[in-house]
Amino acid sequence: MNHTPIAFIAPADYVHTAAWVHALSLAMPEQSIVALSEMDTESRQRCTVAILANPDPADLQRLPQLRWVHSVWAGVEKLVADLGETSLPIVRLVDPQLARTMAEAVLAYTLYLHRDMPAYARQQAQRQWQAQEYVRAESRTVSVLGLGALGSAAARQLSDAGFRVCGWSQSLNQIPGIESFTGQSGLSAMLQKTDILVCLLPLTPQTRGLLGAEAFSLLRDRAALINFSRGAIVNDADLKAALDSGRLRHAVLDVFEVEPLPSTEWHWGHPSVTVLPHCSAPTARESASAIVANNIRRYMEDGIIPVGVNFSRGY
Amino acid sequence: MNHTPIAFIAPADYVHTAAWVHALSLAMPEQSIVALSEMDTESRQRCTVAILANPDPADLQRLPQLRWVHSVWAGVEKLVADLGETSLPIVRLVDPQLARTMAEAVLAYTLYLHRDMPAYARQQAQRQWQAQEYVRAESRTVSVLGLGALGSAAARQLSDAGFRVCGWSQSLNQIPGIESFTGQSGLSAMLQKTDILVCLLPLTPQTRGLLGAEAFSLLRDRAALINFSRGAIVNDADLKAALDSGRLRHAVLDVFEVEPLPSTEWHWGHPSVTVLPHCSAPTARESASAIVANNIRRYMEDGIIPVGVNFSRGY
Repeated sequence: MNHTPIAFIAPADYVHTAAWVHALSLAMPEQSIVALSEMDTESRQRCTVAILANPDPADLQRLPQLRWVHSVWAGVEKLVADLGETSLPIVRLVDPQLARTMAEAVLAYTLYLHRDMPAYARQQAQRQWQAQEYVRAESRTVSVLGLGALGSAAARQLSDAGFRVCGWSQSLNQIPGIESFTGQSGLSAMLQKTDILVCLLPLTPQTRGLLGAEAFSLLRDRAALINFSRGAIVNDADLKAALDSGRLRHAVLDVFEVEPLPSTEWHWGHPSVTVLPHCSAPTARESASAIVANNIRRYMEDGIIPVGVNFSRGY
Repeated sequence: MNHTPIAFIAPADYVHTAAWVHALSLAMPEQSIVALSEMDTESRQRCTVAILANPDPADLQRLPQLRWVHSVWAGVEKLVADLGETSLPIVRLVDPQLARTMAEAVLAYTLYLHRDMPAYARQQAQRQWQAQEYVRAESRTVSVLGLGALGSAAARQLSDAGFRVCGWSQSLNQIPGIESFTGQSGLSAMLQKTDILVCLLPLTPQTRGLLGAEAFSLLRDRAALINFSRGAIVNDADLKAALDSGRLRHAVLDVFEVEPLPSTEWHWGHPSVTVLPHCSAPTARESASAIVANNIRRYMEDGIIPVGVNFSRGY
């Protein structure tokens, strides 16, 4: 058993550092979790594993024996960019609770679009009593981009709710009841069937700007977009053009290239955009801490570093 | 086999009479469906069954041999009031597709409240980036008033989505996974557990005004209301007071005492009210026609009148 302290590293202005150290300490009371800023020199010299919440990469250099790091988030594109050259193993959070929360958000906002809630909100503002034509769920095709832990859970929940569901991923992922696609031609084929497109892809060099004018041109008439992964996957100017022209009916955006979204940005006031403050699937500190604790405990007992991010894939 | 014409009766200004006659004729091509206004005297003398969409009760007197009537709607409180003294059997629509559509609407608006969509809409209008605290579905109790065909389907779908679900009905209705209540004391006990209250009750003398100040006072802090059945079940002045004081967080109202809701009514502009134009579960003409056709075919072949409304219950 190794009782060297484990560092928790976050930016100096991060407000939840104490809450994370507390939750992680409760989840693995046999370990000593210490915020890097409070770690003495000797502990820093001995520390082999760190838990990360958007750290300044320079801080990692203060731990000369570091063997691997565990992110408390699922999205790690910034860590991959920062640490790629060091090849330090990065383990990202894969939390079934997070997948449930995300699947719920996808279902909630798919139903929001399916049941025409944006149109009814506009009508209410104008005191207008007018029923929209009802379309059955089985007549709508919802397509999920990305079929990892989050995407698979979302696709299954959409299918259970009665929608026709397609899914696209880098390597073909067969899920019962979901029509699966892969590759560029698979993407085009899927988009042509799609009424509601849900983006849950990781941000990588391959997915940056993937959703632009060409993708939007392939979607069905009056299709809608839900982006719950990373802002930079969508070409923002192309999105605005597609919404302005009516090519796209509506976009629900939880993620943006710059967050918080600056108050001068066009999205806030656009009648066909629903802006959310990166709230689709907040990390649940308790369940995340339990998962991090299991991975660290195994490493401390057996020296096994959990399977980490594949740097060539980027996630 | 009896080939006397079957009357379709709706108000003179109803715009969908031709569409209904067409759909009903397709569903039972062996019968002759005729709008009452186009029926000749001899056919009216022989007609024993009529299909109704909010008829003027005086029109029914023009059919002296009428033995029973079939409503194309599920809610029949006006027919019951109009025809109660004649004891003419009223068969109301019980359509599994309608139950699915209503269950979907209940899930969609429960998720709307659960995921704080009204708060995020207000924040977007103010260009404010602020995540609300996430509460897990299993920490919310959603209670369904009325466990008939619509309520049972809604309760099951809410339970499948992870919510804690209670249900209340006039006679105890046990559904796996749903905590069931009945009677006045059962109602009080259930309301005290409730975060989101969903009203799917029929309008009867017993349910008129059932949801007022006393019921709202029993609900959990910051509870919300969804009314998808009939406006008159809610005491409108008490609802406004509960929303103004913050006793209730929000109300989603699809039904009102007067419809269309007059543009001068307070609901339209209240920040804690979502107004919908009676769109939660539109009757699907095709599936409804198939159900009406089955009931009429059975009657024409065997003389069996389907089980109708119980006049003492009112539904």
